[in-house]
Amino acid sequence: MIESGSVGIVTPFTESFAEPLALVCGRVLSGYELVVETYGELNAAGTNAILICHALSGNHHAAGFHSTEDQKPGWWDLLIGPGKPIDTDRFFVVSLNNLGGCDGSTGPRSINPETGMPWGPDFPAVQVADWVESQRRLGERLGINRWAAVIGGSLGGMQALQWAVKHPEEVANCVMLACAPKLTAQNIAFNEIARHAILTDPEWHEGHYALEQKVPTRGLALARMVGHLTYMSADGMSDKFGRELREGSFTPNNEEEVVFQVESYLRYQGSQFSTRFDANTYVLMTRALDYFDIAADYNGDLTQAMSAIQARCLVVSYSSDWRFAPARSREISDALLKAGKKVTYAEIATEGGHDAFLLDDAHYLNLMDAWMRQVEV
Amino acid sequence: MIESGSVGIVTPFTESFAEPLALVCGRVLSGYELVVETYGELNAAGTNAILICHALSGNHHAAGFHSTEDQKPGWWDLLIGPGKPIDTDRFFVVSLNNLGGCDGSTGPRSINPETGMPWGPDFPAVQVADWVESQRRLGERLGINRWAAVIGGSLGGMQALQWAVKHPEEVANCVMLACAPKLTAQNIAFNEIARHAILTDPEWHEGHYALEQKVPTRGLALARMVGHLTYMSADGMSDKFGRELREGSFTPNNEEEVVFQVESYLRYQGSQFSTRFDANTYVLMTRALDYFDIAADYNGDLTQAMSAIQARCLVVSYSSDWRFAPARSREISDALLKAGKKVTYAEIATEGGHDAFLLDDAHYLNLMDAWMRQVEV
Repeated sequence: MIESGSVGIVTPFTESFAEPLALVCGRVLSGYELVVETYGELNAAGTNAILICHALSGNHHAAGFHSTEDQKPGWWDLLIGPGKPIDTDRFFVVSLNNLGGCDGSTGPRSINPETGMPWGPDFPAVQVADWVESQRRLGERLGINRWAAVIGGSLGGMQALQWAVKHPEEVANCVMLACAPKLTAQNIAFNEIARHAILTDPEWHEGHYALEQKVPTRGLALARMVGHLTYMSADGMSDKFGRELREGSFTPNNEEEVVFQVESYLRYQGSQFSTRFDANTYVLMTRALDYFDIAADYNGDLTQAMSAIQARCLVVSYSSDWRFAPARSREISDALLKAGKKVTYAEIATEGGHDAFLLDDAHYLNLMDAWMRQVEV
Repeated sequence: MIESGSVGIVTPFTESFAEPLALVCGRVLSGYELVVETYGELNAAGTNAILICHALSGNHHAAGFHSTEDQKPGWWDLLIGPGKPIDTDRFFVVSLNNLGGCDGSTGPRSINPETGMPWGPDFPAVQVADWVESQRRLGERLGINRWAAVIGGSLGGMQALQWAVKHPEEVANCVMLACAPKLTAQNIAFNEIARHAILTDPEWHEGHYALEQKVPTRGLALARMVGHLTYMSADGMSDKFGRELREGSFTPNNEEEVVFQVESYLRYQGSQFSTRFDANTYVLMTRALDYFDIAADYNGDLTQAMSAIQARCLVVSYSSDWRFAPARSREISDALLKAGKKVTYAEIATEGGHDAFLLDDAHYLNLMDAWMRQVEV
């Protein structure tokens, strides 16, 4: 149902790029396509554009509906629309499916022009810096030389940070939500378990499952269950599920297996995800997370890494996020402060965990609204 | 290598119980065997016996060596031995493999006398209360009518608590380490993911893998990786692994997949475990964890549940344990205090995570030593 405050019906479109793209991994992509949605109108000066960077499992469909029959809007409809914090009455919002994705942009499901077959696991290991370069070309194509803001949560926040560091003159404002300057060993370990689930699925076929007309659904479902669990907070889960059973009271004194609500929920999440998402993309995206380290080119000195930034920055963390805990966001904001940059830091008190940047919370939405009003166009 | 302070070479033995055991689930086990190790000597009055309860993947081999060639001692050798906190010069220590285990006691790998085939998934879903009853019969067999102490960590601590609540006159002292009165939704979710990995392994064969001469190693390895990760703290992992690579420096700009140290470590742990542990036992043990709720028979009133306890109690938590966080241990000690019981509570500052109850830490060992000295025999 389309309510006021919605961007309404939106139609994705595809932009093709014929110029080769040299990737961080050393390989070159001869050309690529990006699937894009835009909301609002670009002003005559081209100064009101906002880039939305998606996280691990996101895509270009951030707001509005694809048809009047759609039950659910885009994944960030809460924030994007007329009168909303990312106000489409003021801004021209650009949202894309990243390179290597599985929702229409060039990725493992696409045809490798050199072989005529799907890329599958041979698709290059694109990284955050590669996404930024591909997004930069998209901006040029759309007539945008400088973003009013680059905004993202989690892996999306890493792209926003990379943008501000590498192309400081092209980013006026940078918003990093539930972000980190690099992953911890524990973060990497969770990603490794997710990948291991996929890579040991008998239907993985070394990543060439498409050629075998198979899908490693078991592994992908497990990977998603692990991931999803780390996006929720322990307290949030207790509030939501407690120890409730799917039906009846807690009487484990019979032959039937007791299934807790939280188990059904996780199985459903895993099962749904495994039918829509591509396993090679999941491996690629988690690798991009693992490899990201904004200070790597600066001998690990985060303050030094921030030194080139010109953007006004907003760093937001969520109290119950244990995947990228508030301390990780403070590393970013502290480094920005030390480097003498304009930065606002806020920690939102919430039980929403890592996913809180996607959730309805008055404090969070008011903060975003107030901060975005200060973005000049 | 056998050092001073070791119990030396130990030999497990088997005790058979022919009397049927009625289980919480409503089924009856016609008879069973328990594999046991003992360290030290039972005194003439039979008053110096200590029961060690193992956790999810533990067994009877808690201390000493099985042969002079053994590279590693039993899993709690740090605490058990002459002059150690659980002092075998003073105490007679009893350690067993729990019912449903896979190290020699009757469990899914055993032959079901009614079918002549391995029990496999048809082995009854034994629970914490069942373990306590089977341990009680073991005590009687060994001439022990009252334990000087019942001691356990994690799932072992739940058994110690169950003992003190259900048989208050038979437990003089009760030690619960890294414990909780029941699981949270997040705890259950991690167990569910581990089970899901096993149950969706194509070699699972509905649990009858032994009949098919198969082993669901992939699922079991993944289950262990998930579990192991939750036993370590984020900070402990950062200290141990950081972002170190297995070899060379961090240069993800080539075709080869970068493998972080933490990935190799987890894969190794999973692989090792999958060759020694039984998948049906793993499912059974995690289910026993999920079902445990000491206050369930008391309308969820934990203080009421504690009211019958006569034992002097020690509750120890570990600051970086996020599986059973210190707050969960405080629930136990607070309820004990409210119920007017003798309780000592300590939180050990450590980066060891949930596994810290197994690790070397001067504060922890000194505390255990001092407290155990007060145990009268």
